[in-house]
Amino acid sequence: MAEQEASGTMAEEAKIDEDILQVLRDMANRLRLHAIRTLCASGFRHPILCSSASEIMSVLLFYIMRYKLTDPENPNNDRFVLSKRLSFVNVATGWLGQGLGIACGMAYTGRYFDKASYRVFCLIGDGESSEGSVWEAMAFASHYSLDNLVAIFDVNHLCHSGTQPLEHCVDLFQKRCEAFGWSTFVVDGRDVEALCHVFQQAAQVKSKPTAVVAKTFRGHGMPHVEDAENCHERSMPKERVETIIKLIESQIQTKKKLNPKPPVEDSPQINITDIEMTSPPAYNVGDMIATRKACGLALAKLGRANDRVVVLDGDSKNSTFSDIFKKEHPEHFVECSSEQSMVSVALGCATRGRMVTFLCTFAAFLTRAFDQIRMGAISRTSINLIGSHCGVSIGEDSPSQMALEDLAMFRTVPNCTIFYPSDAISTEHAVLLAANTKGMCYIRISRPETAVIYTPDEIFEIGRAKVVRNSVNDRLTVVGAGVTLHEALAAADDLSKQEDISIRVIDLFTVKPLDAATVISNAKATGGQIITVEDHSSEGGIGEAVCAAVSMVPDILVHQLAVPGAPRSEKPNEPLSMFGISARQITVAVKCILMN
Amino acid sequence: MAEQEASGTMAEEAKIDEDILQVLRDMANRLRLHAIRTLCASGFRHPILCSSASEIMSVLLFYIMRYKLTDPENPNNDRFVLSKRLSFVNVATGWLGQGLGIACGMAYTGRYFDKASYRVFCLIGDGESSEGSVWEAMAFASHYSLDNLVAIFDVNHLCHSGTQPLEHCVDLFQKRCEAFGWSTFVVDGRDVEALCHVFQQAAQVKSKPTAVVAKTFRGHGMPHVEDAENCHERSMPKERVETIIKLIESQIQTKKKLNPKPPVEDSPQINITDIEMTSPPAYNVGDMIATRKACGLALAKLGRANDRVVVLDGDSKNSTFSDIFKKEHPEHFVECSSEQSMVSVALGCATRGRMVTFLCTFAAFLTRAFDQIRMGAISRTSINLIGSHCGVSIGEDSPSQMALEDLAMFRTVPNCTIFYPSDAISTEHAVLLAANTKGMCYIRISRPETAVIYTPDEIFEIGRAKVVRNSVNDRLTVVGAGVTLHEALAAADDLSKQEDISIRVIDLFTVKPLDAATVISNAKATGGQIITVEDHSSEGGIGEAVCAAVSMVPDILVHQLAVPGAPRSEKPNEPLSMFGISARQITVAVKCILMN
Repeated sequence: MAEQEASGTMAEEAKIDEDILQVLRDMANRLRLHAIRTLCASGFRHPILCSSASEIMSVLLFYIMRYKLTDPENPNNDRFVLSKRLSFVNVATGWLGQGLGIACGMAYTGRYFDKASYRVFCLIGDGESSEGSVWEAMAFASHYSLDNLVAIFDVNHLCHSGTQPLEHCVDLFQKRCEAFGWSTFVVDGRDVEALCHVFQQAAQVKSKPTAVVAKTFRGHGMPHVEDAENCHERSMPKERVETIIKLIESQIQTKKKLNPKPPVEDSPQINITDIEMTSPPAYNVGDMIATRKACGLALAKLGRANDRVVVLDGDSKNSTFSDIFKKEHPEHFVECSSEQSMVSVALGCATRGRMVTFLCTFAAFLTRAFDQIRMGAISRTSINLIGSHCGVSIGEDSPSQMALEDLAMFRTVPNCTIFYPSDAISTEHAVLLAANTKGMCYIRISRPETAVIYTPDEIFEIGRAKVVRNSVNDRLTVVGAGVTLHEALAAADDLSKQEDISIRVIDLFTVKPLDAATVISNAKATGGQIITVEDHSSEGGIGEAVCAAVSMVPDILVHQLAVPGAPRSEKPNEPLSMFGISARQITVAVKCILMN
Repeated sequence: MAEQEASGTMAEEAKIDEDILQVLRDMANRLRLHAIRTLCASGFRHPILCSSASEIMSVLLFYIMRYKLTDPENPNNDRFVLSKRLSFVNVATGWLGQGLGIACGMAYTGRYFDKASYRVFCLIGDGESSEGSVWEAMAFASHYSLDNLVAIFDVNHLCHSGTQPLEHCVDLFQKRCEAFGWSTFVVDGRDVEALCHVFQQAAQVKSKPTAVVAKTFRGHGMPHVEDAENCHERSMPKERVETIIKLIESQIQTKKKLNPKPPVEDSPQINITDIEMTSPPAYNVGDMIATRKACGLALAKLGRANDRVVVLDGDSKNSTFSDIFKKEHPEHFVECSSEQSMVSVALGCATRGRMVTFLCTFAAFLTRAFDQIRMGAISRTSINLIGSHCGVSIGEDSPSQMALEDLAMFRTVPNCTIFYPSDAISTEHAVLLAANTKGMCYIRISRPETAVIYTPDEIFEIGRAKVVRNSVNDRLTVVGAGVTLHEALAAADDLSKQEDISIRVIDLFTVKPLDAATVISNAKATGGQIITVEDHSSEGGIGEAVCAAVSMVPDILVHQLAVPGAPRSEKPNEPLSMFGISARQITVAVKCILMN
């Protein structure tokens, strides 16, 4: 385990010109002034906040990082991920504990897909390191030897262990970083020279990520404020702020600026738009295949169509069938061992439009990453999430693995497209559409085998439902998706044969956006009666989406069939029937409604 | 940092009778046989699974733990939390990475509230330790010096680092546990004598939790199976299983049994049912107070009414106002630094009905603990979660802190009661009702100050909405809750004064269960027109809940006002107006509907 105090090896390093060091100190103070002015302008007056990292930022931005100032999105640029809040960076932050996972995704992409020189730096507050997601990312980075990744822990006195002395906090961070397999340096975060040397050393470390544990002091440079406890609560009198500003200004000795070094231009040219499959879907109507398996096959096919597809899985590849992709494209498959970091890593892979990113896991386990998903949507990411084993149709497994809340969860995510394909053909289309769609996509897939119902030339669009059973005599419309669509079709057959009752059946294909026009026009054509049937809780899923879609249209009634209450883990021969969402129950519901 | 190989100090310990050791070995083999038979009976035939921990279980259950076999729920019993899956324990598992946090809550309760002798043991699989929530719990336990807690890491060859040798895995766990402040022992998990000694030593460790890193081997005791890679995928021929069963049976030398030691009976008698406040709410109509502040005050008052109330907060106590509780009841307040472990710790505190457990944080941050919440509900826990700073009404803060999905999230949680009080009086009632209600409760509270609208003698019930504005001339019903109720009342005033239009206004009080009867009867009495208005996304919240409630009633139309798309962080003077949910927009909507 590399363990060095930066000062120990400093003599061996090339001495940095004192002029440059002074410019870096001045730039740090300019950042500090900018922070104070930004805070004051927004009505706050606690300038102590966030000034601890000014020297770190100055050294990174003006001495260490290689990038084009005029082209911040250039793929060759070094990346910087701000996980903690800094008042002089005017972006919506809130990546508490999520930044490092995102940085891991960027570093993984740089090392394994781009095979390029750019490096990734991530600044982390000491408080946020109490989030477990940070330690998931720490384990990921060392497991994958991400030596192009540097995490800077900004450890100030007021660390979460509260009453412990600063030295202890720094020790704690050092020990934990080393135990998680990182090359770790401790440095005085106010000392620009020491910072320069540490970052230079980090660049030499091979096959390990580097952690820089920086001892910092809130309010550094502000007399009577530096490192005082609790003053982040107080607002400071305006005159006092002015005095501090003047003092910091007086320490600035030069007007010189440093230009960042240009990046090495070795990132490959890529194209991830307008991806087309190499052949149409190869299924025949009536083939029995689970949508989860069709999804794995579609991902593998997509990998053939474009060489920038990456698939992540959270230790469930033989259940989600992402192992089909892995077998064909082993170098584009990333094994993750926990859901939060998996989503963050995916967000990192997808940045700057460099990868077509899919991640697969049991849909129920995505609940663990709801915060990462929510934040990803706010950042307008284009990752695609695939949730398998949805609903009670998984059968014998534990209720902990039955996703009954995933549609509700993803429906609240702004601008998220939700696919819920019902057969292998529509699954393949969902995967291709997701790959080509901006913004987050979620694909809900099922465990049981179901029949192929579409022909290979069927055309699928986002927001366009399919009317899969239709006659002029239809007296009611059933809306289904996934496994329940097949139940609805079976019910339609039964009703037709045994009772001479015709019903219309709609396959939503996308739950969001919902094809309200198709639902409404078909409901109107079938007596204004709709039954929704879903392998999901009755809250926030298909039933309520349909209720909302028709809520302002007179004379349409909606009857919901959904999974009631907490599911139980039993050994049902027919799980759908046990929970009230099978063909039999649809048939009964239809008859009840039509008799009234 | 304590760091000992168990064998090193074994000589100093009292020698354990060889007869006892043999019984423990035999009990381990009986557990192993039970595991194999259980698996085979359920149709699986991979007996390798989960037999690695048999010796650990035998030693814990029959030699170390103190409990009454005939009274498993006795408060004095030692606790055992099974975080990994064991095939011979027939419960719905799925606490992947969540068990240790729950164990922390039990140990915290034992040490600080019960001040009793019982101890807590938690068995953790090595795979699940890749979940960050485990490391959050590790940090929590050492921070609070939980020396009554023992975590056993069952580290077998097939650890998540995959290709690394066993020794390396054990080292890795040892280093990480020590870095997180735990007294750590490494032991051969097949050696019952070494296990006995290690657990005896753990009982002597003061002010630190103890980690036992047990080297184990999957399929221990099964020839040609032990520690073989990948065989957990395969099904084994029936004859082979029979051979293994016979071999294990032949190793059993005795029919003796060991009885567990009885527990020390020093847990206090408690009563947490039928809690009553010491006085009625002390607010007057028109007082301006935020529901978050009223909630903090109500918690403090509840702490006066019952001495078994515990409040947890995730580093936001000055925003959620849980610091009011802390000031009055400092010893019943638990500071947590991350949401996942906070929810797990709360689940642990609430077990065996020993604590009235509330936890507070920003509602948006509860998304991070959705999996813990979901699993808690499946286990029928009675924790109460309080989410503050809901919706866009928080004003200037980052969109990452605006909860717009919490109602959708909690509505999918089976049997969860959701309170959304609109003033200080109803908030106090919500807190008291939650304290006395079985099952999970969620209370949604708001940041801005709002007027008190109820009198102190108003009676509140779960599932009972309040009609707060009502006349025979009402032409439409507006349903609100929280901040939007006040907007609805303002709109009613405006419409009445300026347009001579009367509208009815309903305060839901509980979003789940929803008072469908009140909503429907009032809608029918006001022309069948409803407007819902909520500081939440339009998916899965109040609007859709109302749509679903009236979906089978003819001639009722629902118009939703909700926060559209992704919120932005700006400086609105009137955030509700910016996002379309203010009095002005309600007024416009009413006029539009009535003109059509």
